[in-house]
Amino acid sequence: MDIAKINQTPCYAVIFNSVLKNSVEGYEEMAEKMVELARQQPGFLGFESIRDKIGITISYWADQESIHNWKNYSEHLLAQKLGKNQWYKSYAIRICKIERQYYFDTE
Amino acid sequence: MDIAKINQTPCYAVIFNSVLKNSVEGYEEMAEKMVELARQQPGFLGFESIRDKIGITISYWADQESIHNWKNYSEHLLAQKLGKNQWYKSYAIRICKIERQYYFDTE
Repeated sequence: MDIAKINQTPCYAVIFNSVLKNSVEGYEEMAEKMVELARQQPGFLGFESIRDKIGITISYWADQESIHNWKNYSEHLLAQKLGKNQWYKSYAIRICKIERQYYFDTE
Repeated sequence: MDIAKINQTPCYAVIFNSVLKNSVEGYEEMAEKMVELARQQPGFLGFESIRDKIGITISYWADQESIHNWKNYSEHLLAQKLGKNQWYKSYAIRICKIERQYYFDTE
């Protein structure tokens, strides 16, 4: 997992924070599948994800339309339904417009 | 660390992604001090932070002015300087306007 390098501003970020239930059979496989599918969507720009006690996943998108299309993509709709019913204790989704970005790199 | 519950939209998020150097003496203490200071700033709304191979820290703010003031707060300026010189291999800062938020909770 690296820092996503996004070369366009403005663009959009979806911040997805979540807390899993204790038993999450099938979750990891579905999460990996969704990342693979998201990467193939028009307007997908990048992705960062870490999980400890809570999970933070940030996906980056060219525009709101791309986010809307991904939200309503059939296999993603199924994953969302399973997530609410089986895996997530709680979550927050925040749709954000990225207005400015700065990078620092020592290499 | 819980999911931040932010009750106002629109508001602002600062997404800070970072990779640390191998040796980071003094970093943890400074990071904790900065969180404590940030919490006391006008316009501060919430905070989430996780570190694995990369770190993702998201702070939430009422408006751009609050972000600007925190960026230029004297003790934070010193921390930023030390961060660039001593602790961070690389980082990205993204200033975002949160346009929509959704919460789901099973409890």
